[in-house]
Amino acid sequence: MFKTLEWTDEGVRLIDQTRLPAEESYLTCATYEDVADAIRRMVVRGAPAIGVAAAMGIALGLRDAEGDHVSELRRKFDEICETMAETRPTAVNLFWAIRRMRARFEALSDEPVERIRRELVAEAQRMYLEDIAANEAMGRNGAVLMPSAGGVLTHCNAGALATCGYGTALGVIRAAVEGGKKIHVYADETRPFLQGSRLTAWELQKDGIPTTVIADNMAGAMMSQGKVAAVVVGADRIAANGDVANKIGTYTVAVLAREHGIPFYVAAPFSTVDLDTPDGSRIPIEQRASREVTHIAGKPVAPEGVKVENPAFDVTPAKYVAGIITERGVARPPYEESLKQLAEAATVEIS
Amino acid sequence: MFKTLEWTDEGVRLIDQTRLPAEESYLTCATYEDVADAIRRMVVRGAPAIGVAAAMGIALGLRDAEGDHVSELRRKFDEICETMAETRPTAVNLFWAIRRMRARFEALSDEPVERIRRELVAEAQRMYLEDIAANEAMGRNGAVLMPSAGGVLTHCNAGALATCGYGTALGVIRAAVEGGKKIHVYADETRPFLQGSRLTAWELQKDGIPTTVIADNMAGAMMSQGKVAAVVVGADRIAANGDVANKIGTYTVAVLAREHGIPFYVAAPFSTVDLDTPDGSRIPIEQRASREVTHIAGKPVAPEGVKVENPAFDVTPAKYVAGIITERGVARPPYEESLKQLAEAATVEIS
Repeated sequence: MFKTLEWTDEGVRLIDQTRLPAEESYLTCATYEDVADAIRRMVVRGAPAIGVAAAMGIALGLRDAEGDHVSELRRKFDEICETMAETRPTAVNLFWAIRRMRARFEALSDEPVERIRRELVAEAQRMYLEDIAANEAMGRNGAVLMPSAGGVLTHCNAGALATCGYGTALGVIRAAVEGGKKIHVYADETRPFLQGSRLTAWELQKDGIPTTVIADNMAGAMMSQGKVAAVVVGADRIAANGDVANKIGTYTVAVLAREHGIPFYVAAPFSTVDLDTPDGSRIPIEQRASREVTHIAGKPVAPEGVKVENPAFDVTPAKYVAGIITERGVARPPYEESLKQLAEAATVEIS
Repeated sequence: MFKTLEWTDEGVRLIDQTRLPAEESYLTCATYEDVADAIRRMVVRGAPAIGVAAAMGIALGLRDAEGDHVSELRRKFDEICETMAETRPTAVNLFWAIRRMRARFEALSDEPVERIRRELVAEAQRMYLEDIAANEAMGRNGAVLMPSAGGVLTHCNAGALATCGYGTALGVIRAAVEGGKKIHVYADETRPFLQGSRLTAWELQKDGIPTTVIADNMAGAMMSQGKVAAVVVGADRIAANGDVANKIGTYTVAVLAREHGIPFYVAAPFSTVDLDTPDGSRIPIEQRASREVTHIAGKPVAPEGVKVENPAFDVTPAKYVAGIITERGVARPPYEESLKQLAEAATVEIS
C-alpha cells in the first residue's frame, strides 16, 4: 500500500499527487522550504495531510537549523511557521498543526536544544499516528450512517491521500464496506484539479471498492435517477455554527442532496473544527491560478485572455449538513451546541 | 465572423468544433456519410445546428445519388435518413429536419428527379435561413427577461456555434446586450466536452461580451455570492409538459437556480418542442464513450479500467423552468397549455 506522507531521515517523503493516476512516484523534501512548496503545488493536499506535512516540515526545518541557544531556534521556528502559514489559507488544520508544534516548543524551551529538536520530530510523528487513529475512529462512528446497500456520492478526495492514511469521508466508506455494507461509490471528478477521478478512484480501485467516476455536473442526474443514497465529503474548515468549507463544488452537491432528500454528511477530524470562526462567512477562501481552469494537460481549453473564477473552496451552510462525523462522535444540529460538547470530550488516545 | 455551417457546391462546410478554441479550422463534408460522421464526432453539435446539418446532408446525398426515377431516389432517401437518424438520439431537431425533408420530397414526388434534387437543396438552405431568423426572434422575445445589469449564467453552448447563427440562449443574451443591458456572462465549462469554456467563451469573446468561465461545480458558489441574476440555457428536446432535455448538468443548474430564487429560462426554436413526447421520462438519453471523461487531451485523468457514467443530457422537470423562450413567444407554466397554444401560432416567415 502507498504512504501519502512519511517522515524519513532524508526528509519528508510524499507521494506526488500531481502525477497520479498515471504515475505513482515519490518526492523527498529535504528542507522545510521544499515541504512548503509541495503544499503550495498540491503535491500533498487534503486538510489533514497538509496539517501533518506542515508539522513534519517544521520538525525538519528545526532539526537542520543551526544554533545552540533556544532563542536562535525560536527565531528559526517563527520563520518556518510563517512560511508554512502562507502556503494555503483555508485548511485550518495547517494552523492547528503550527499551534500544536509551537505549544510543544514552548513547553520544552528550558531544555537543551538537541532535545527540543528531537522532541519536535517525535511530536510530528505522533500527529501522524493520531491522524490515522482518528480516521479509523471516524470510520467506526460514521459507518452506521451509510446505507446497507446503495450508492454513496463523494466529492474531491477525502481519502488516504488526503490524510496520513485510511481517510475521513473515504474512511467512513471503508469502514462501512469492512462491516459488510454493499456500497457503490460515485466519485465526482472535481474540476479543476480532478481529485475525484485522479485520486479517489485510484485509491478506491486499489481497495477493490466499486467506484463510478462522474463529471461534477452529473451529480444531479444521478440523484434524480435514485442512484445515490447518501453523500459523504471531507472538510477544510468547520465553523462553530457548523458551516463547512470544503472543496469547490461541495455546496452544489449539498443543495442537490437536500432537493432529493438524501442525507449529506461531513467527515473530518476534530482539528478541522474552528470554534474561533463563528460562521462560514469568516472563512478565508483561497483563489488559485486561472490556468488550472483554462488549461488541461498543458493544452488550452478556453480562449486566451478569458476571465476565470477559481475559488479552491466553497462554504456549505450548516442547514444542509445532516451530521458531522468526527473521531469524537457525530455532531448533529444544532451544531453550536453539539460541536461545543465534542470540544469538551476527550481526544482519541493512540494505544 | 465565422459560419458554423454552410452549404457550398463542394459539400457541407463546418467549423470544426472539436478543435476550438486553439484552432479555427473548417471541414468540408463531400458526402452525406461525412456529414453523419461529423455529427457523431461533434464536429458540429447543438440541436438546431444538428438539424440543419442533417438536412444539408440529406440534400447532399440526394444531389449526388444516381437514379433517373423517383423510386430509386426514394430508396436512397430512406437510406440517408436512416444513417442520419442514428447519429444522435436526443436532439429532436434532427428528426424534425428529417421529417421536413421527407415531406418536401413527397410533395415533389411527381416532379422530375432533377427538380427534386434541386428543391431539396433549396429546402435545406431555407431551413438554414429560418433558423437564424428564429434565433433573432427568440432574442427579441427573451431580451426583456434578462436583467438590465448583472450576471447571467449559461451552461454548455447554445450560441451561434450551436445553430446556424446568433444562437438561442446566447441569442437572448446578444439581443439584451444590443438593447443596452449590461450583462456579464458566467459560462459553465461543461464537462466532459467543455462546450462552455471552449465554445461559449470563444464566441462571446469575439462579440466583446464580458464572460467569466467557471468550472461546473462553481455555479452554486457564484449564485450564493449573488453574482447570478438569471440563467438561460438551450434545449435538445422539450416534452409536451415542459420537461427539458439539455446538456448534462443543466438539471443541476436548474436546482441551484431555484434554491437561490433565480429565474431559469430555456431558449429554443419551436422545432425543439416535441408534443409527441408527453414528459421527460420518455426522452431517450444518449450515452457517450467513457473516454470523454477518463481522458483529457489524450492524457488519462482516471485510473485504467474505472467505471464511468457519461450521459450526454439530463432532464430538467418543468417545475424548475420559469419560461421557455421560442421564436413564437415565451411559454409560461402550465406548459401543457402554453406550448399547445404556441404550436397553433404561425411560424416565423423570413422576409
